[in-house]
Amino acid sequence: MMKQLITLALVFALIGSANAQTTDTTLLAKNHDYSGAQATKKHYHAIYQLDSNDPKVIEKAIRNINNALVDPRLKDKVEIEVITFAGGTEVVVKGSKYEEALKDLVLKGVIVAQCNNSLRERKIERSGIYDFVGVVPSGNGGLIIRQNEGWAVVKP
Amino acid sequence: MMKQLITLALVFALIGSANAQTTDTTLLAKNHDYSGAQATKKHYHAIYQLDSNDPKVIEKAIRNINNALVDPRLKDKVEIEVITFAGGTEVVVKGSKYEEALKDLVLKGVIVAQCNNSLRERKIERSGIYDFVGVVPSGNGGLIIRQNEGWAVVKP
Amino acid sequence: MMKQLITLALVFALIGSANAQTTDTTLLAKNHDYSGAQATKKHYHAIYQLDSNDPKVIEKAIRNINNALVDPRLKDKVEIEVITFAGGTEVVVKGSKYEEALKDLVLKGVIVAQCNNSLRERKIERSGIYDFVGVVPSGNGGLIIRQNEGWAVVKP
Repeated sequence: MMKQLITLALVFALIGSANAQTTDTTLLAKNHDYSGAQATKKHYHAIYQLDSNDPKVIEKAIRNINNALVDPRLKDKVEIEVITFAGGTEVVVKGSKYEEALKDLVLKGVIVAQCNNSLRERKIERSGIYDFVGVVPSGNGGLIIRQNEGWAVVKP
Repeated sequence: MMKQLITLALVFALIGSANAQTTDTTLLAKNHDYSGAQATKKHYHAIYQLDSNDPKVIEKAIRNINNALVDPRLKDKVEIEVITFAGGTEVVVKGSKYEEALKDLVLKGVIVAQCNNSLRERKIERSGIYDFVGVVPSGNGGLIIRQNEGWAVVKP
Repeated sequence: MMKQLITLALVFALIGSANAQTTDTTLLAKNHDYSGAQATKKHYHAIYQLDSNDPKVIEKAIRNINNALVDPRLKDKVEIEVITFAGGTEVVVKGSKYEEALKDLVLKGVIVAQCNNSLRERKIERSGIYDFVGVVPSGNGGLIIRQNEGWAVVKP
């Protein structure tokens, strides 16, 4: 009788283990098949936080924005704003190597604007940054306002 | 008379100062007692942005997600998605040291997916990343879509 | 006839090019004039993620928060919470050089709280951090809860 019970217990343990393995396989296969969120809304909004002078981060930001603009899910229905502040201020200072990339974004409809606090803290005049760049009271204020209104904030 | 006025002014100044100190003490004590936001909603959603190949950032991300999953406020009511892109692509490339940690997340119900733009930019084939990882059109597109729908975006 | 057609084609090409240039100039001028989002809501909320021990990041965070508090668009209608975790834990450990800056924030109405998971992981007692700092179950839990409720999350 004891022997039979042990056999039965072993059988159940094996079934349990097999079930667990099936669940694992199912979860991994389901994850493999995941192909991303669908964009069901009519309009999408994003504000990019560019607060670093690290060329890798700056180039990633520009590449990211260009990718988002042509993402088939967002194409023609996403509005993007880039706010430069802190170290990112250097991106919009005249003579930086990003003039063409920034202009290109503006011509694609992206807003590019600089934080005025950072200009003051760094003693940079309005005339010291590219003329086509806008100026906003504070970068963080913009991030907070936009995000409270439902915009996405992306920090590359 | 002048002397009395001065005395009176001093008394008021002292009361004012004492009041200010009381307010300060109250504010500091109130902050000490703060124990965190309450989770009043039925479901929570978060998308983790993993765009760095810095082991410290990667390990922080994995630890963060595991912590969020067992946070008593969120346990069993939070849905989490991890999107790898840019430097973070290295995390899902076959041979990385994160296979088990990623699988563990998927088996806990977390979605793990890689940005297709980053694969193209880095000339990595679908077969070059772990088979159980999903692929999405663009990492940034996903961040923007999810956040516009009310999801939290966390960048570790 | 062929010559006339070529002339006509050239004229149209020139008009097209001029139009494109006008559009470009208009877009650049419009971006120049951009002066930031307006704060139309009665209340704004932001949670700051302080998870780095890099003095530059810590000082940027403190400066950012102080800037947001006095942004004319947000003044007196923004509620701010700072959550320290991971490397940011060092900011609230007794003996750090940020005691006065943190106290100053609390006295301005900002909540400053530390992640309990990070304390445990780093084997730091409650008594090891500034007494006026609050403690929350998990930093990431807080970020997820707040953001799902419509708060902005800012990572300096």
